[in-house]
Amino acid sequence: MRHFEDFEPGQTLPLARHEVTREAILAFAAEFDPQPFHLDEVAASRSLLGGLAASGWHTTSIFMRMMYDGWLSEAASMGSSGIEETRWLKPVRPGDILSGQSIVIETRASRRRPQIGVVRFRHEVANQRGQTVLSMVNPIAFRRREAAA
Amino acid sequence: MRHFEDFEPGQTLPLARHEVTREAILAFAAEFDPQPFHLDEVAASRSLLGGLAASGWHTTSIFMRMMYDGWLSEAASMGSSGIEETRWLKPVRPGDILSGQSIVIETRASRRRPQIGVVRFRHEVANQRGQTVLSMVNPIAFRRREAAA
Repeated sequence: MRHFEDFEPGQTLPLARHEVTREAILAFAAEFDPQPFHLDEVAASRSLLGGLAASGWHTTSIFMRMMYDGWLSEAASMGSSGIEETRWLKPVRPGDILSGQSIVIETRASRRRPQIGVVRFRHEVANQRGQTVLSMVNPIAFRRREAAA
Repeated sequence: MRHFEDFEPGQTLPLARHEVTREAILAFAAEFDPQPFHLDEVAASRSLLGGLAASGWHTTSIFMRMMYDGWLSEAASMGSSGIEETRWLKPVRPGDILSGQSIVIETRASRRRPQIGVVRFRHEVANQRGQTVLSMVNPIAFRRREAAA
């Protein structure tokens, strides 16, 4: 189990690979983001996206699963208070195979809560062509090993 | 249809109300964010969240639907390049009824793309107790009325 003390700046943690299907794009859009360019091939081809693409919120949700399966499930995560910066850099298309990493920017122990430390990450998700499709800066709280003992 | 020219700083646009069910929280978490505090009542009660709570990515996805139903479906949206700031301020619980607004911070026409303008919003989502649970700063691109004519 990875605790706060096990993170250090520069570390790179792999995200799990994830294939994005047309069915998943359409199902997510129908539930949460029914803008025409996420639901309809013709409307999408006329939009800035230039073709059917996943909702940005679908991409961030997929990222979450990629992070969980990649490394977070074996870490003592206490959750996150937010995202400092979210960039949807390229459309995510049906059939795209996403991969990526979480890079540790810095670590800081909490003064207010001695059992916790916060690790700031840059998360990067890329498609099978090597294009970064999503990047985020995100602090996550972890239990400290001492407090856990 | 609301175009770029129809937005001005200080405007407040209402988000649609949305009830968050336990079933929806569990279904989203199982698919995208299976951390114990989003799936299991006992684990959640021992976590910083103090009880079962929606994944932050579920909350942002619900926000997207609240914005679509509230005002975006009748606007000439061209999508968004990202979120400048996302803050999960309070847990979202089973049975919570969310409401909120998008507040226009500023508007700027694009020099590079004369058919488009970008509107920066602060989005705020609150629960039925009046507590803000989510706030975001988010630029969205809209078609200009002239270009549309």
